[in-house]
Amino acid sequence: MPSHLNDELPALIALANDLAEAAGRETLPRFRSADLITSNKLASGFDPVTEADEASEAAMRALLTERRPDDGVYGEEQERTFGTSGLTWVLDPIDGTRAFISGMPTWGTLIALDDGDRGRIGVVDQPYMGERYVGAVGSESQAWMEHRGERRPIRTRPCTNLSDATIFTTDPYLFNDTETEAFSNIRHRARLTRYGTDCYGYALVAIGQIDAVIETDLQAYDIAALVPLIEAAGGVVTDWSGGDCRWGGQAVAAGSAELHEALLERLAPASKNG
Amino acid sequence: MPSHLNDELPALIALANDLAEAAGRETLPRFRSADLITSNKLASGFDPVTEADEASEAAMRALLTERRPDDGVYGEEQERTFGTSGLTWVLDPIDGTRAFISGMPTWGTLIALDDGDRGRIGVVDQPYMGERYVGAVGSESQAWMEHRGERRPIRTRPCTNLSDATIFTTDPYLFNDTETEAFSNIRHRARLTRYGTDCYGYALVAIGQIDAVIETDLQAYDIAALVPLIEAAGGVVTDWSGGDCRWGGQAVAAGSAELHEALLERLAPASKNG
Repeated sequence: MPSHLNDELPALIALANDLAEAAGRETLPRFRSADLITSNKLASGFDPVTEADEASEAAMRALLTERRPDDGVYGEEQERTFGTSGLTWVLDPIDGTRAFISGMPTWGTLIALDDGDRGRIGVVDQPYMGERYVGAVGSESQAWMEHRGERRPIRTRPCTNLSDATIFTTDPYLFNDTETEAFSNIRHRARLTRYGTDCYGYALVAIGQIDAVIETDLQAYDIAALVPLIEAAGGVVTDWSGGDCRWGGQAVAAGSAELHEALLERLAPASKNG
Repeated sequence: MPSHLNDELPALIALANDLAEAAGRETLPRFRSADLITSNKLASGFDPVTEADEASEAAMRALLTERRPDDGVYGEEQERTFGTSGLTWVLDPIDGTRAFISGMPTWGTLIALDDGDRGRIGVVDQPYMGERYVGAVGSESQAWMEHRGERRPIRTRPCTNLSDATIFTTDPYLFNDTETEAFSNIRHRARLTRYGTDCYGYALVAIGQIDAVIETDLQAYDIAALVPLIEAAGGVVTDWSGGDCRWGGQAVAAGSAELHEALLERLAPASKNG
Protein backbone atom coordinates (compact mmCIF):
# COMPACT_ATOMS: atom_id res chain seq x y z
CA MET A 1 0.00 0.00 0.00
CA PRO A 2 1.34 3.48 -0.87
CA SER A 3 2.88 4.74 2.37
CA HIS A 4 2.05 8.39 1.69
CA LEU A 5 -1.58 7.35 1.93
CA ASN A 6 -1.20 6.67 5.65
CA ASP A 7 -0.50 10.36 6.24
CA GLU A 8 -3.46 11.37 4.14
CA LEU A 9 -5.81 8.88 5.78
CA PRO A 10 -7.28 11.21 8.45
CA ALA A 11 -8.22 13.81 5.81
CA LEU A 12 -9.67 11.11 3.58
CA ILE A 13 -11.72 9.73 6.49
CA ALA A 14 -13.04 13.24 7.14
CA LEU A 15 -14.03 13.45 3.47
CA ALA A 16 -15.74 10.05 3.67
CA ASN A 17 -17.77 11.42 6.59
CA ASP A 18 -18.69 14.50 4.54
CA LEU A 19 -19.78 12.22 1.68
CA ALA A 20 -22.03 10.31 4.10
CA GLU A 21 -23.56 13.58 5.31
CA ALA A 22 -24.16 14.75 1.72
CA ALA A 23 -25.78 11.41 0.84
CA GLY A 24 -27.99 11.48 3.94
CA ARG A 25 -29.33 14.92 3.07
CA GLU A 26 -30.77 13.36 -0.10
CA THR A 27 -31.87 9.96 1.18
CA LEU A 28 -33.34 10.63 4.63
CA PRO A 29 -36.02 13.18 3.67
CA ARG A 30 -37.25 10.74 1.00
CA PHE A 31 -37.30 7.67 3.28
CA ARG A 32 -40.93 6.68 3.99
CA SER A 33 -42.12 9.75 2.10
CA ALA A 34 -45.51 9.28 0.46
CA ASP A 35 -44.35 10.61 -2.90
CA LEU A 36 -41.38 8.31 -3.30
CA ILE A 37 -40.85 7.80 -7.00
CA THR A 38 -39.54 4.42 -8.01
CA SER A 39 -38.66 3.31 -11.49
CA ASN A 40 -37.80 -0.18 -12.60
CA LYS A 41 -34.27 -0.65 -13.89
CA LEU A 42 -35.22 -3.93 -15.45
CA ALA A 43 -38.54 -4.25 -17.22
CA SER A 44 -38.70 -7.81 -16.00
CA GLY A 45 -38.02 -8.49 -12.34
CA PHE A 46 -37.87 -5.75 -9.78
CA ASP A 47 -34.75 -3.65 -9.31
CA PRO A 48 -36.04 -0.30 -8.08
CA VAL A 49 -33.97 2.82 -8.22
CA THR A 50 -35.30 5.83 -6.48
CA GLU A 51 -34.89 9.53 -6.87
CA ALA A 52 -33.06 9.28 -3.57
CA ASP A 53 -30.49 6.89 -5.03
CA GLU A 54 -29.74 9.16 -7.96
CA ALA A 55 -29.73 12.43 -6.02
CA SER A 56 -27.53 10.93 -3.31
CA GLU A 57 -24.86 9.68 -5.74
CA ALA A 58 -24.93 13.01 -7.58
CA ALA A 59 -24.34 14.87 -4.29
CA MET A 60 -21.39 12.64 -3.40
CA ARG A 61 -19.89 12.95 -6.88
CA ALA A 62 -20.18 16.73 -6.77
CA LEU A 63 -18.22 16.79 -3.52
CA LEU A 64 -15.55 14.47 -4.94
CA THR A 65 -15.20 16.52 -8.13
CA GLU A 66 -14.60 19.56 -5.97
CA ARG A 67 -12.24 18.07 -3.39
CA ARG A 68 -10.60 15.07 -5.08
CA PRO A 69 -10.67 15.77 -8.84
CA ASP A 70 -7.85 13.28 -9.53
CA ASP A 71 -9.53 10.26 -7.88
CA GLY A 72 -11.65 7.76 -9.77
CA VAL A 73 -15.32 7.22 -8.87
CA TYR A 74 -17.19 3.95 -9.24
CA GLY A 75 -20.83 4.33 -8.20
CA GLU A 76 -24.02 2.41 -8.77
CA GLU A 77 -25.93 5.05 -10.68
CA GLN A 78 -23.50 6.83 -13.02
CA GLU A 79 -20.72 5.69 -15.31
CA ARG A 80 -17.38 4.87 -13.70
CA THR A 81 -14.73 7.56 -13.99
CA PHE A 82 -11.00 6.82 -13.86
CA GLY A 83 -8.63 9.19 -12.08
CA THR A 84 -4.88 9.69 -12.08
CA SER A 85 -4.20 9.44 -8.33
CA GLY A 86 -4.51 5.66 -8.12
CA LEU A 87 -7.37 6.07 -5.65
CA THR A 88 -10.97 5.12 -6.40
CA TRP A 89 -14.09 5.97 -4.42
CA VAL A 90 -16.66 3.19 -4.63
CA LEU A 91 -20.16 4.43 -3.79
CA ASP A 92 -23.52 2.82 -3.25
CA PRO A 93 -25.90 5.66 -2.41
CA ILE A 94 -28.56 3.24 -1.13
CA ASP A 95 -27.54 -0.35 -0.53
CA GLY A 96 -30.81 -2.15 0.10
CA THR A 97 -33.18 -0.27 -2.20
CA ARG A 98 -35.76 -2.99 -1.56
CA ALA A 99 -35.52 -2.31 2.18
CA PHE A 100 -35.70 1.44 1.49
CA ILE A 101 -38.90 1.23 -0.54
CA SER A 102 -40.39 -1.11 2.09
CA GLY A 103 -39.78 1.38 4.90
CA MET A 104 -37.21 -0.93 6.55
CA PRO A 105 -34.41 1.10 8.16
CA THR A 106 -31.71 -1.47 7.34
CA TRP A 107 -30.54 0.15 4.10
CA GLY A 108 -27.32 2.11 4.14
CA THR A 109 -25.08 4.39 2.15
CA LEU A 110 -21.80 2.63 1.35
CA ILE A 111 -18.59 4.57 0.79
CA ALA A 112 -15.24 2.92 0.08
CA LEU A 113 -11.81 4.24 -0.76
CA ASP A 114 -9.70 1.78 -2.72
CA ASP A 115 -5.97 2.29 -3.29
CA GLY A 116 -5.68 -0.14 -6.20
CA ASP A 117 -4.41 -2.95 -3.99
CA ARG A 118 -7.09 -2.99 -1.35
CA GLY A 119 -9.89 -1.11 0.35
CA ARG A 120 -8.52 1.45 2.80
CA ILE A 121 -11.69 3.11 4.10
CA GLY A 122 -15.15 1.62 4.45
CA VAL A 123 -18.25 3.45 5.69
CA VAL A 124 -21.82 2.24 6.27
CA ASP A 125 -24.12 5.15 7.04
CA GLN A 126 -27.71 4.67 8.26
CA PRO A 127 -29.13 8.15 8.74
CA TYR A 128 -32.64 7.17 9.93
CA MET A 129 -31.13 5.44 12.95
CA GLY A 130 -28.31 7.98 13.19
CA GLU A 131 -25.70 5.24 12.88
CA ARG A 132 -22.37 5.37 11.06
CA TYR A 133 -19.88 2.49 10.96
CA VAL A 134 -16.33 3.32 9.84
CA GLY A 135 -13.26 1.16 9.24
CA ALA A 136 -9.83 2.44 8.17
CA VAL A 137 -7.03 0.12 7.13
CA GLY A 138 -3.62 1.73 7.54
CA SER A 139 -0.38 1.39 9.49
CA GLU A 140 -2.75 1.06 12.46
CA SER A 141 -6.21 -0.12 11.49
CA GLN A 142 -9.14 1.35 13.35
CA ALA A 143 -12.87 0.78 13.37
CA TRP A 144 -15.61 2.64 15.21
CA MET A 145 -19.27 3.46 15.15
CA GLU A 146 -21.12 6.67 15.83
CA HIS A 147 -24.69 6.57 17.10
CA ARG A 148 -26.46 9.91 17.35
CA GLY A 149 -23.14 11.68 17.84
CA GLU A 150 -21.65 9.22 20.34
CA ARG A 151 -18.53 7.44 19.07
CA ARG A 152 -17.11 4.13 20.29
CA PRO A 153 -14.54 1.64 18.97
CA ILE A 154 -15.95 -1.58 17.50
CA ARG A 155 -14.59 -5.10 17.23
CA THR A 156 -15.79 -8.40 15.73
CA ARG A 157 -16.39 -11.23 18.18
CA PRO A 158 -14.21 -14.34 18.32
CA CYS A 159 -16.75 -17.06 17.51
CA THR A 160 -14.77 -20.02 16.20
CA ASN A 161 -17.35 -22.82 15.88
CA LEU A 162 -20.03 -22.93 13.23
CA SER A 163 -22.41 -24.44 15.79
CA ASP A 164 -22.16 -21.24 17.87
CA ALA A 165 -22.47 -18.88 14.91
CA THR A 166 -25.23 -16.46 13.96
CA ILE A 167 -25.23 -16.08 10.17
CA PHE A 168 -27.10 -13.62 7.94
CA THR A 169 -27.92 -13.51 4.28
CA THR A 170 -30.21 -11.19 2.35
CA ASP A 171 -32.52 -13.63 0.62
CA PRO A 172 -32.13 -17.42 0.50
CA TYR A 173 -33.82 -17.46 -2.91
CA LEU A 174 -30.97 -15.49 -4.53
CA PHE A 175 -28.68 -18.55 -4.47
CA ASN A 176 -28.44 -20.93 -7.45
CA ASP A 177 -28.86 -24.68 -6.81
CA THR A 178 -25.21 -25.38 -5.99
CA GLU A 179 -25.05 -22.30 -3.75
CA THR A 180 -28.28 -23.31 -2.01
CA GLU A 181 -26.80 -26.71 -1.23
CA ALA A 182 -23.65 -25.14 0.25
CA PHE A 183 -25.67 -22.60 2.21
CA SER A 184 -28.10 -25.24 3.55
CA ASN A 185 -25.12 -27.28 4.70
CA ILE A 186 -24.07 -24.25 6.76
CA ARG A 187 -27.57 -23.24 7.86
CA HIS A 188 -28.28 -26.66 9.39
CA ARG A 189 -25.08 -26.47 11.46
CA ALA A 190 -25.25 -22.80 12.50
CA ARG A 191 -26.82 -21.68 15.75
CA LEU A 192 -29.06 -19.11 14.08
CA THR A 193 -29.70 -17.90 10.53
CA ARG A 194 -31.48 -14.67 9.64
CA TYR A 195 -32.53 -12.97 6.42
CA GLY A 196 -33.15 -9.64 4.80
CA THR A 197 -30.35 -7.38 5.90
CA ASP A 198 -28.25 -6.18 2.93
CA CYS A 199 -25.28 -4.12 4.19
CA TYR A 200 -26.63 -4.00 7.73
CA GLY A 201 -25.63 -7.61 8.39
CA TYR A 202 -21.98 -6.71 7.71
CA ALA A 203 -22.23 -3.83 10.17
CA LEU A 204 -23.50 -6.30 12.78
CA VAL A 205 -20.46 -8.51 12.10
CA ALA A 206 -18.21 -5.46 12.54
CA ILE A 207 -19.72 -4.66 15.96
CA GLY A 208 -19.58 -8.29 17.12
CA GLN A 209 -23.34 -8.85 17.32
CA ILE A 210 -23.39 -11.61 14.69
CA ASP A 211 -20.67 -13.85 13.27
CA ALA A 212 -20.94 -14.02 9.49
CA VAL A 213 -22.68 -12.88 6.32
CA ILE A 214 -22.83 -15.02 3.17
CA GLU A 215 -23.96 -13.55 -0.15
CA THR A 216 -23.77 -13.99 -3.89
CA ASP A 217 -24.08 -11.96 -7.11
CA LEU A 218 -22.73 -8.77 -5.55
CA GLN A 219 -21.53 -5.74 -7.47
CA ALA A 220 -18.34 -3.92 -6.43
CA TYR A 221 -20.35 -1.10 -4.85
CA ASP A 222 -22.29 -3.66 -2.72
CA ILE A 223 -19.16 -5.00 -1.04
CA ALA A 224 -16.20 -2.59 -1.45
CA ALA A 225 -16.94 -0.61 1.73
CA LEU A 226 -17.67 -3.70 3.80
CA VAL A 227 -14.26 -5.32 3.29
CA PRO A 228 -12.13 -2.60 4.99
CA LEU A 229 -14.84 -2.04 7.62
CA ILE A 230 -14.78 -5.68 8.74
CA GLU A 231 -11.02 -6.09 8.29
CA ALA A 232 -10.36 -3.03 10.44
CA ALA A 233 -12.74 -4.44 13.08
CA GLY A 234 -10.84 -7.74 13.18
CA GLY A 235 -12.72 -9.94 10.73
CA VAL A 236 -12.10 -11.54 7.34
CA VAL A 237 -13.97 -11.02 4.04
CA THR A 238 -13.25 -12.99 0.85
CA ASP A 239 -15.00 -14.66 -2.05
CA TRP A 240 -16.07 -18.30 -1.64
CA SER A 241 -12.60 -19.53 -2.68
CA GLY A 242 -10.76 -17.34 -0.20
CA GLY A 243 -9.81 -14.75 -2.84
CA ASP A 244 -10.37 -11.03 -3.16
CA CYS A 245 -14.08 -10.16 -3.38
CA ARG A 246 -13.91 -6.38 -3.40
CA TRP A 247 -15.02 -6.14 -7.03
CA GLY A 248 -18.13 -8.25 -6.40
CA GLY A 249 -19.43 -11.78 -6.90
CA GLN A 250 -19.77 -14.19 -3.99
CA ALA A 251 -18.74 -13.00 -0.53
CA VAL A 252 -18.27 -14.51 2.91
CA ALA A 253 -17.57 -12.17 5.83
CA ALA A 254 -16.72 -13.58 9.25
CA GLY A 255 -15.73 -12.13 12.58
CA SER A 256 -12.84 -14.57 13.10
CA ALA A 257 -10.32 -16.33 10.87
CA GLU A 258 -11.33 -19.73 12.32
CA LEU A 259 -15.02 -19.32 11.50
CA HIS A 260 -14.15 -17.91 8.08
CA GLU A 261 -12.10 -21.05 7.39
CA ALA A 262 -14.97 -23.32 8.50
CA LEU A 263 -17.38 -21.47 6.21
CA LEU A 264 -14.99 -21.48 3.23
CA GLU A 265 -14.66 -25.24 3.49
CA ARG A 266 -18.41 -25.60 2.93
CA LEU A 267 -18.76 -22.79 0.37
CA ALA A 268 -15.78 -23.72 -1.84
CA PRO A 269 -17.69 -26.44 -3.76
CA ALA A 270 -20.12 -23.73 -4.93
CA SER A 271 -17.46 -21.12 -5.69
CA LYS A 272 -17.58 -19.47 -9.08
CA ASN A 273 -13.87 -18.63 -8.87
CA GLY A 274 -12.72 -22.11 -7.85
CA MET B 1 -67.93 -4.21 22.79
CA PRO B 2 -68.66 -2.78 26.26
CA SER B 3 -69.62 0.85 25.63
CA HIS B 4 -68.23 2.10 28.98
CA LEU B 5 -64.80 1.09 27.64
CA ASN B 6 -64.94 3.86 25.05
CA ASP B 7 -64.90 6.46 27.83
CA GLU B 8 -62.02 4.72 29.54
CA LEU B 9 -60.01 4.31 26.37
CA PRO B 10 -57.88 7.48 26.64
CA ALA B 11 -56.75 6.52 30.15
CA LEU B 12 -56.04 2.96 29.04
CA ILE B 13 -54.00 4.25 26.08
CA ALA B 14 -52.01 6.42 28.48
CA LEU B 15 -51.37 3.33 30.60
CA ALA B 16 -50.30 1.36 27.51
CA ASN B 17 -47.77 4.12 26.82
CA ASP B 18 -46.53 3.90 30.41
CA LEU B 19 -46.15 0.14 30.02
CA ALA B 20 -44.07 0.69 26.88
CA GLU B 21 -41.84 3.16 28.75
CA ALA B 22 -41.40 0.71 31.65
CA ALA B 23 -40.52 -2.09 29.23
CA GLY B 24 -38.03 0.10 27.35
CA ARG B 25 -36.18 0.97 30.54
CA GLU B 26 -35.38 -2.75 30.88
CA THR B 27 -34.79 -3.70 27.24
CA LEU B 28 -32.90 -0.77 25.73
CA PRO B 29 -29.90 -0.70 28.11
CA ARG B 30 -29.41 -4.42 27.46
CA PHE B 31 -29.67 -4.20 23.66
CA ARG B 32 -26.24 -4.81 22.09
CA SER B 33 -24.70 -4.96 25.56
CA ALA B 34 -21.66 -7.18 25.76
CA ASP B 35 -22.88 -9.05 28.82
CA LEU B 36 -26.24 -10.09 27.42
CA ILE B 37 -27.20 -13.33 29.11
CA THR B 38 -29.23 -15.73 27.02
CA SER B 39 -30.68 -19.03 28.12
CA ASN B 40 -32.35 -21.63 25.95
CA LYS B 41 -36.04 -22.23 26.61
CA LEU B 42 -35.93 -25.45 24.69
CA ALA B 43 -32.97 -27.77 25.04
CA SER B 44 -33.38 -28.64 21.38
CA GLY B 45 -33.72 -25.83 18.87
CA PHE B 46 -33.04 -22.24 19.76
CA ASP B 47 -35.62 -20.12 21.54
CA PRO B 48 -33.57 -17.61 23.51
CA VAL B 49 -35.01 -15.67 26.36
CA THR B 50 -32.96 -12.86 27.75
CA GLU B 51 -32.72 -11.14 31.07
CA ALA B 52 -34.22 -8.21 29.20
CA ASP B 53 -37.31 -10.22 28.31
CA GLU B 54 -37.93 -11.28 31.88
CA ALA B 55 -37.16 -7.92 33.49
CA SER B 56 -39.31 -6.10 30.97
CA GLU B 57 -42.38 -8.27 31.56
CA ALA B 58 -41.89 -8.02 35.32
CA ALA B 59 -41.80 -4.22 35.08
CA MET B 60 -45.01 -4.12 33.03
CA ARG B 61 -46.76 -6.55 35.39
CA ALA B 62 -45.78 -4.48 38.41
CA LEU B 63 -47.37 -1.41 36.85
CA LEU B 64 -50.54 -3.34 35.98
CA THR B 65 -50.82 -4.80 39.48
CA GLU B 66 -50.65 -1.28 40.84
CA ARG B 67 -52.96 0.49 38.41
CA ARG B 68 -55.28 -2.22 37.03
CA PRO B 69 -55.45 -4.96 39.70
CA ASP B 70 -58.75 -6.34 38.31
CA ASP B 71 -57.50 -6.90 34.75
CA GLY B 72 -56.07 -10.20 33.51
CA VAL B 73 -52.48 -10.42 32.21
CA TYR B 74 -51.28 -12.81 29.54
CA GLY B 75 -47.54 -12.42 28.92
CA GLU B 76 -44.83 -14.50 27.33
CA GLU B 77 -42.67 -15.03 30.39
CA GLN B 78 -44.95 -15.55 33.40
CA GLU B 79 -48.13 -17.55 34.00
CA ARG B 80 -51.37 -16.04 32.76
CA THR B 81 -53.50 -14.35 35.41
CA PHE B 82 -57.28 -13.95 35.07
CA GLY B 83 -58.97 -10.77 36.27
CA THR B 84 -62.55 -9.81 37.05
CA SER B 85 -62.89 -6.73 34.82
CA GLY B 86 -63.27 -8.64 31.54
CA LEU B 87 -60.14 -6.90 30.24
CA THR B 88 -56.88 -8.70 29.53
CA TRP B 89 -53.46 -7.19 28.83
CA VAL B 90 -51.48 -9.31 26.40
CA LEU B 91 -47.75 -8.61 26.62
CA ASP B 92 -44.70 -9.64 24.65
CA PRO B 93 -41.77 -7.87 26.29
CA ILE B 94 -39.48 -8.61 23.31
CA ASP B 95 -41.07 -9.84 20.12
CA GLY B 96 -38.13 -10.86 17.97
CA THR B 97 -35.70 -12.20 20.56
CA ARG B 98 -33.61 -13.61 17.70
CA ALA B 99 -33.35 -10.10 16.23
CA PHE B 100 -32.55 -8.70 19.67
CA ILE B 101 -29.66 -11.08 20.31
CA SER B 102 -28.37 -10.42 16.77
CA GLY B 103 -28.24 -6.67 17.33
CA MET B 104 -31.02 -6.07 14.76
CA PRO B 105 -33.22 -3.15 15.81
CA THR B 106 -36.42 -4.70 14.40
CA TRP B 107 -37.58 -6.30 17.66
CA GLY B 108 -40.38 -4.62 19.58
CA THR B 109 -42.35 -4.64 22.79
CA LEU B 110 -45.96 -5.64 22.09
CA ILE B 111 -48.79 -4.49 24.33
CA ALA B 112 -52.45 -5.32 23.70
CA LEU B 113 -55.65 -4.67 25.59
CA ASP B 114 -58.36 -7.23 24.84
CA ASP B 115 -61.98 -6.74 25.95
CA GLY B 116 -62.98 -10.37 25.60
CA ASP B 117 -64.54 -9.82 22.17
CA ARG B 118 -61.64 -8.16 20.40
CA GLY B 119 -58.41 -6.27 20.75
CA ARG B 120 -59.02 -2.62 21.61
CA ILE B 121 -55.49 -1.25 21.96
CA GLY B 122 -52.34 -2.40 20.19
CA VAL B 123 -48.85 -0.97 20.71
CA VAL B 124 -45.53 -1.81 19.03
CA ASP B 125 -42.67 -0.03 20.77
CA GLN B 126 -39.12 0.07 19.36
CA PRO B 127 -37.04 2.06 21.83
CA TYR B 128 -33.68 1.87 20.00
CA MET B 129 -35.17 3.73 17.05
CA GLY B 130 -37.45 5.79 19.27
CA GLU B 131 -40.53 4.55 17.45
CA ARG B 132 -43.94 3.74 18.90
CA TYR B 133 -46.91 2.56 16.82
CA VAL B 134 -50.34 2.73 18.48
CA GLY B 135 -53.82 1.66 17.32
CA ALA B 136 -57.02 2.10 19.32
CA VAL B 137 -60.30 0.50 18.26
CA GLY B 138 -63.30 2.33 19.69
CA SER B 139 -66.33 4.35 18.65
CA GLU B 140 -63.79 6.17 16.49
CA SER B 141 -60.71 4.12 15.70
CA GLN B 142 -57.39 5.90 15.59
CA ALA B 143 -53.83 4.92 14.75
CA TRP B 144 -50.65 6.93 15.00
CA MET B 145 -46.91 6.65 15.35
CA GLU B 146 -44.44 8.58 17.43
CA HIS B 147 -40.85 8.93 16.29
CA ARG B 148 -38.48 10.58 18.74
CA GLY B 149 -41.36 12.55 20.24
CA GLU B 150 -43.01 13.57 16.98
CA ARG B 151 -46.52 12.15 16.52
CA ARG B 152 -48.39 11.64 13.24
CA PRO B 153 -51.49 9.69 12.17
CA ILE B 154 -50.86 6.50 10.20
CA ARG B 155 -52.86 4.63 7.59
CA THR B 156 -52.45 1.42 5.59
CA ARG B 157 -52.13 1.81 1.82
CA PRO B 158 -54.81 0.67 -0.61
CA CYS B 159 -52.90 -1.92 -2.64
CA THR B 160 -55.51 -4.22 -4.17
CA ASN B 161 -53.53 -6.46 -6.55
CA LEU B 162 -51.19 -9.19 -5.42
CA SER B 163 -48.89 -8.34 -8.33
CA ASP B 164 -48.33 -4.86 -6.82
CA ALA B 165 -47.90 -6.10 -3.27
CA THR B 166 -44.85 -6.10 -1.01
CA ILE B 167 -45.14 -9.01 1.43
CA PHE B 168 -43.09 -9.87 4.51
CA THR B 169 -42.62 -12.99 6.56
CA THR B 170 -40.16 -13.76 9.32
CA ASP B 171 -38.51 -16.92 8.03
CA PRO B 172 -39.59 -18.96 5.01
CA TYR B 173 -38.30 -22.12 6.72
CA LEU B 174 -40.88 -21.86 9.53
CA PHE B 175 -43.67 -23.03 7.20
CA ASN B 176 -44.64 -26.71 6.93
CA ASP B 177 -44.86 -28.28 3.45
CA THR B 178 -48.47 -27.31 2.77
CA GLU B 179 -47.85 -23.79 4.06
CA THR B 180 -44.70 -23.48 1.96
CA GLU B 181 -46.70 -24.40 -1.14
CA ALA B 182 -49.34 -21.76 -0.36
CA PHE B 183 -46.70 -19.14 0.44
CA SER B 184 -44.69 -19.89 -2.72
CA ASN B 185 -47.85 -19.50 -4.76
CA ILE B 186 -48.13 -15.99 -3.31
CA ARG B 187 -44.42 -15.18 -3.43
CA HIS B 188 -44.19 -15.88 -7.16
CA ARG B 189 -47.08 -13.49 -7.86
CA ALA B 190 -46.14 -10.69 -5.43
CA ARG B 191 -44.07 -7.70 -6.45
CA LEU B 192 -41.57 -8.11 -3.64
CA THR B 193 -41.07 -10.51 -0.72
CA ARG B 194 -38.82 -9.83 2.25
CA TYR B 195 -37.81 -11.78 5.35
CA GLY B 196 -36.76 -11.44 8.94
CA THR B 197 -38.98 -8.81 10.46
CA ASP B 198 -41.09 -10.23 13.31
CA CYS B 199 -43.50 -7.55 14.61
CA TYR B 200 -41.81 -4.81 12.61
CA GLY B 201 -43.39 -6.01 9.36
CA TYR B 202 -46.86 -5.43 10.83
CA ALA B 203 -45.84 -1.89 11.83
CA LEU B 204 -44.79 -1.31 8.21
CA VAL B 205 -48.24 -2.49 7.06
CA ALA B 206 -49.83 -0.08 9.55
CA ILE B 207 -47.87 2.89 8.15
CA GLY B 208 -48.56 1.93 4.53
CA GLN B 209 -44.97 1.09 3.57
CA ILE B 210 -45.69 -2.56 2.77
CA ASP B 211 -48.90 -4.43 1.98
CA ALA B 212 -49.04 -7.69 3.92
CA VAL B 213 -47.45 -10.01 6.46
CA ILE B 214 -48.01 -13.77 6.43
CA GLU B 215 -46.96 -15.92 9.39
CA THR B 216 -47.60 -19.21 11.13
CA ASP B 217 -47.25 -20.83 14.57
CA LEU B 218 -47.82 -17.59 16.46
CA GLN B 219 -48.63 -17.34 20.14
CA ALA B 220 -51.32 -14.93 21.38
CA TYR B 221 -48.67 -12.48 22.61
CA ASP B 222 -47.04 -12.46 19.13
CA ILE B 223 -50.18 -11.21 17.39
CA ALA B 224 -52.67 -9.72 19.90
CA ALA B 225 -51.27 -6.17 19.70
CA LEU B 226 -50.91 -6.25 15.93
CA VAL B 227 -54.60 -6.90 15.21
CA PRO B 228 -56.01 -3.66 16.72
CA LEU B 229 -52.99 -1.68 15.45
CA ILE B 230 -53.60 -2.70 11.83
CA GLU B 231 -57.42 -2.60 12.11
CA ALA B 232 -57.29 0.94 13.50
CA ALA B 233 -54.95 1.91 10.64
CA GLY B 234 -57.41 0.59 8.02
CA GLY B 235 -56.21 -2.97 7.42
CA VAL B 236 -57.45 -6.50 8.05
CA VAL B 237 -55.84 -9.29 10.12
CA THR B 238 -57.23 -12.83 10.35
CA ASP B 239 -56.12 -16.45 10.42
CA TRP B 240 -55.69 -18.26 7.09
CA SER B 241 -59.42 -19.13 6.98
CA GLY B 242 -60.56 -15.56 7.58
CA GLY B 243 -61.30 -16.18 11.28
CA ASP B 244 -60.08 -14.55 14.47
CA CYS B 245 -56.32 -14.96 14.95
CA ARG B 246 -55.81 -12.93 18.10
CA TRP B 247 -55.03 -15.99 20.21
CA GLY B 248 -52.31 -17.17 17.82
CA GLY B 249 -51.73 -19.71 15.07
CA GLN B 250 -51.55 -18.67 11.43
CA ALA B 251 -51.99 -14.99 10.57
CA VAL B 252 -52.39 -12.88 7.45
CA ALA B 253 -52.36 -9.10 7.82
CA ALA B 254 -53.12 -6.88 4.83
CA GLY B 255 -53.49 -3.17 4.27
CA SER B 256 -56.70 -3.52 2.26
CA ALA B 257 -59.72 -5.85 2.29
CA GLU B 258 -59.20 -6.65 -1.42
CA LEU B 259 -55.61 -7.77 -0.99
CA HIS B 260 -56.55 -9.68 2.18
CA GLU B 261 -59.19 -11.55 0.17
CA ALA B 262 -56.68 -12.38 -2.60
CA LEU B 263 -54.22 -13.72 -0.05
CA LEU B 264 -56.85 -15.75 1.84
CA GLU B 265 -57.83 -17.49 -1.37
CA ARG B 266 -54.28 -18.82 -1.72
CA LEU B 267 -53.69 -19.50 1.99
CA ALA B 268 -56.99 -21.27 2.75
CA PRO B 269 -55.81 -24.66 1.38
CA ALA B 270 -53.04 -24.61 4.03
CA SER B 271 -55.25 -23.35 6.87
CA LYS B 272 -55.16 -25.30 10.11
CA ASN B 273 -58.62 -23.98 11.05
CA GLY B 274 -60.28 -24.79 7.72
